[in-house]
Amino acid sequence: MNILSRINGPQELKNLNPQELVALADELRAAVLNRVSKVGGHVGPNLGITELTIAFHYVFQSPVDKIIWDVSHQSYPHKILTGRKNAYLEEDAFDDISGYTSQDESAHDFFKIGHTSTSISLAVGLAKARDLKQEKGNVVALIGDGSLSGGLAFEGLNNGAELNSNLIVVLNDNEMSIDENFGGLYCNLTELRKTNGKSPNNLFKSMGFDYQYVEQGNNVAAMIKAFEAVKDIDHPIVLHVHTEKGHGYSPAVEEKGLFHWRPPFDLTTGESLSPNSQPTYSGLIVEELLKKIASGTKDLVAINAAIPGMFDLAPLKAQQPTHYFDVGIAEGHSISFAAGLAKNGIRPVLFHSSYFLPRAYDQLSHDLAINQLPAVIIVGNGHLTESDITHQGIFDIPMINSIPNLKYLAPSSKEEVLSMLDWALLQTEGPVAIRLPAGPVVSRPAAYQDYSQPHYEVRHQGQAAAILALGNFISLGESVRQQLEKLLGVSPTLINPLTITELDQDCLAQLKANHSIVITLEDGSLTGGFGEKVAAYYGDSSMKVLNFGALKEFTDNVAMEELVDRYQLSPEVIAAKVLEAIK
Amino acid sequence: MNILSRINGPQELKNLNPQELVALADELRAAVLNRVSKVGGHVGPNLGITELTIAFHYVFQSPVDKIIWDVSHQSYPHKILTGRKNAYLEEDAFDDISGYTSQDESAHDFFKIGHTSTSISLAVGLAKARDLKQEKGNVVALIGDGSLSGGLAFEGLNNGAELNSNLIVVLNDNEMSIDENFGGLYCNLTELRKTNGKSPNNLFKSMGFDYQYVEQGNNVAAMIKAFEAVKDIDHPIVLHVHTEKGHGYSPAVEEKGLFHWRPPFDLTTGESLSPNSQPTYSGLIVEELLKKIASGTKDLVAINAAIPGMFDLAPLKAQQPTHYFDVGIAEGHSISFAAGLAKNGIRPVLFHSSYFLPRAYDQLSHDLAINQLPAVIIVGNGHLTESDITHQGIFDIPMINSIPNLKYLAPSSKEEVLSMLDWALLQTEGPVAIRLPAGPVVSRPAAYQDYSQPHYEVRHQGQAAAILALGNFISLGESVRQQLEKLLGVSPTLINPLTITELDQDCLAQLKANHSIVITLEDGSLTGGFGEKVAAYYGDSSMKVLNFGALKEFTDNVAMEELVDRYQLSPEVIAAKVLEAIK
Repeated sequence: MNILSRINGPQELKNLNPQELVALADELRAAVLNRVSKVGGHVGPNLGITELTIAFHYVFQSPVDKIIWDVSHQSYPHKILTGRKNAYLEEDAFDDISGYTSQDESAHDFFKIGHTSTSISLAVGLAKARDLKQEKGNVVALIGDGSLSGGLAFEGLNNGAELNSNLIVVLNDNEMSIDENFGGLYCNLTELRKTNGKSPNNLFKSMGFDYQYVEQGNNVAAMIKAFEAVKDIDHPIVLHVHTEKGHGYSPAVEEKGLFHWRPPFDLTTGESLSPNSQPTYSGLIVEELLKKIASGTKDLVAINAAIPGMFDLAPLKAQQPTHYFDVGIAEGHSISFAAGLAKNGIRPVLFHSSYFLPRAYDQLSHDLAINQLPAVIIVGNGHLTESDITHQGIFDIPMINSIPNLKYLAPSSKEEVLSMLDWALLQTEGPVAIRLPAGPVVSRPAAYQDYSQPHYEVRHQGQAAAILALGNFISLGESVRQQLEKLLGVSPTLINPLTITELDQDCLAQLKANHSIVITLEDGSLTGGFGEKVAAYYGDSSMKVLNFGALKEFTDNVAMEELVDRYQLSPEVIAAKVLEAIK
Repeated sequence: MNILSRINGPQELKNLNPQELVALADELRAAVLNRVSKVGGHVGPNLGITELTIAFHYVFQSPVDKIIWDVSHQSYPHKILTGRKNAYLEEDAFDDISGYTSQDESAHDFFKIGHTSTSISLAVGLAKARDLKQEKGNVVALIGDGSLSGGLAFEGLNNGAELNSNLIVVLNDNEMSIDENFGGLYCNLTELRKTNGKSPNNLFKSMGFDYQYVEQGNNVAAMIKAFEAVKDIDHPIVLHVHTEKGHGYSPAVEEKGLFHWRPPFDLTTGESLSPNSQPTYSGLIVEELLKKIASGTKDLVAINAAIPGMFDLAPLKAQQPTHYFDVGIAEGHSISFAAGLAKNGIRPVLFHSSYFLPRAYDQLSHDLAINQLPAVIIVGNGHLTESDITHQGIFDIPMINSIPNLKYLAPSSKEEVLSMLDWALLQTEGPVAIRLPAGPVVSRPAAYQDYSQPHYEVRHQGQAAAILALGNFISLGESVRQQLEKLLGVSPTLINPLTITELDQDCLAQLKANHSIVITLEDGSLTGGFGEKVAAYYGDSSMKVLNFGALKEFTDNVAMEELVDRYQLSPEVIAAKVLEAIK
């Protein structure tokens, strides 16, 4: 780290000579690899963007000139060059930074960004504000080719084209989304690359942008020249840059999908240090879908939005490619597309992450729920997490709960997951979402096969206190039950509600007979969630109700221990609160 | 209605000669005008689409061949030709239909659609299902030029381009969105129109579609020829058709924005039959913003997504055009754009409708709320309504309530609206949404000027029962109070909470002293809303809580009287329920 040791901010970069700049790119890659091989992170996007990042900071004056990194998967070299290199070089400092850009970390970052396709719109806002204030400075939106498949990017392009002032959209075209790219626009990008930007078909010119092509995106000198040519430009331009995802590290070049985001790995071989051979709920679902298709259920299709790895979809893609769709990073389209399929007699099974599904909120409501179309939505990552602020899995319950005609089920074991899937695929009432339990796969027989009506499973019939524990919180519920049993001297009731969106009013009414308090436990944000509905149900009675779950807040890399403490989610604390309420 | 009298379904159309087809177009327009002049509705879009609609049903075999009408603003001629003509001809039958397409009304409709930009994605789903089932038939998505500004349309185009089979996207280019079009793509449409489709810049070819241009979209013969040329095509094509919004009715041609949707009007003059000279809350806000800008507050901008008429924004656009943005039908972009503006020191005031804001759910959360940027969002149409299923204003409370860092205020008078606006524009904590009260403008002094902390206004200090009535439901609250006073013999408490998203825990705790029941009233869906939070707050106490508001359901043209009955929202019924709960 000969050169990097001298760089504490972008200003120092400007004194380096061309050879040093080239060498710096390799040092940046080494620093990125040092961190990600040990703690995991985005690999390929950052290795491919190093030369572009160096050139940006060499040519422009950040933060007067502003760059917005779309989804920030590729922001590590930028972070290293803007005062955060220790977090890549020294293990002690790994925790100093988040995985994404953050204005809390540096004046060279402007937003916390972890969802794709927003950079152009944000940049148009920054640029328009600059113009209104009659200030100077370049505004640069960097967006990957994969992120272009999100419709918001087009809304941004459409509006950005109307600026009569500086706006530079850098398209980082590494020929890859998180996984492969899908869609018509990628043919145009290919054509533009093949013709060195000369093809008469040019999406960006059609949208009203000026356009330049740079073939050598991993050449510092070429990138400096390209940036110098557009610096201080007085109108909107797209700078289409061809880079190589994973550049300079052969395992990442060879396995681009695998190395988009990678858990800790051996730097020499690229092999994962924690090979995951444990079964997963999504893996079991994929297996089940493959079985169904193989045995003649031809009307099944699986749909995902650019995250097949998150849901173990590789076998489905490989074995039944006509039953598999990756729509790109286009969650909204995935839902409307599924509505069209369902209307015409095909059963779509969508795989979505708790924190990306909000991108399709209106399509869930308008296209699926209003039209009562029988699509199945598998929701992953729906649980408390230590992750970054943009990747919190606690808001899916309130979100889905607010939409009529959309049933949300909470299984707690693999048998329940599969039984709900079976039922959801045969019913014709409307869309059904299934929340995958957090944690390792649990086996326990399903109590029911029919989920058309809410029918809570009473796991343990007791008295005095009843615990309603959703999904994977059933194990917490059992611990609370045991704790309460000790303290109360009577055996409380434990219930597995199975359905999030509807109350089993018979069950709830029956509890009134010999229970004075109901405790709800949910692995999600309380506001607008399951527990509040239970509290409202008992509002006209003398039943007391305590809701446990996450507070409505965005957390950012907070340790689970701290979350459990903050949300009072230990069996001991819950039991103590119960005693306090009924004393 | 010489010809129309013989047409009861598309099949009968096929026997008409060219002259009759032309005459039929005029009869369709007369039928449309007959209805909309009496009950209001979409005027211009339907007058412009008549020839295209006739040609579609002449050439294609609906419903084997399927057409999806984007947003269905232009579906009236289609409805008339597919068995629903009486609802346009006879006043007695006006109520037989909804304002949008609906599979409940006809086998020639496939979805209930009232939001824009979904047709291509839905059509791609229908087409892919057709292919999987190895069936035949054309799938046609009709989309207006205005709807193209919604990013979902591009997600649909991107994925649709990959079909190796029939998909016909008809772009109905009438050179207008709901209001004027904004954005770079419209330059391309203009260029394509001017060059008779020959411009080398072609957005649709760049997205991977085949392309044809039809200049004479209001000529039946030309449209029949154009449809015959693409019928049974074996790959995706965009048929770009130039039509005239309002064609054949000069008031609608001359005032295209005004006649997009129009309340009842005089057929001869086009003048409104119910000229609205009453002040509106949004009008007052616009007035206030104009005052602020005129008196030197230069960092203010107003943003809307293609619905300036809904928010009385014309004076702002006319008098302060540099402070006014219509981003097109791109709600998502409007929010991310506002985030960029706010980050760079400009204060955006966004105007959104309760039922379209869900299209920006993730941008509200990811771009605005996570980044705690001080944008102001004025939410209109947030209340119970007799309107169509896709235009229900009751879900904004649960939606916004689920997002951290986003404050939602509920004013009940113009003074409160303006005081909240003033405060929201000066604070720097994060985004603030203000829910415009329903009904005529009410005047009553605001109790507070600072809304940083929830501080409920006790309108009437009483005992026994406390009524928490949000926003415009404060008048219902007062009626309930009076009713209860009569029945209980003591005077109950009435509270104006002002803040939806946060509880005033001091106020709620104080109520415990001399109240045994709290009644919440909200003009919205109860599930995930305000009242449930209040019920949860009192869960550990002996306070009873009754929540009144809308059930979580989509209603479709249901009379207000029926809604009030169904949701038990009359003072008499509410008071009776209270007595039952405390007896």
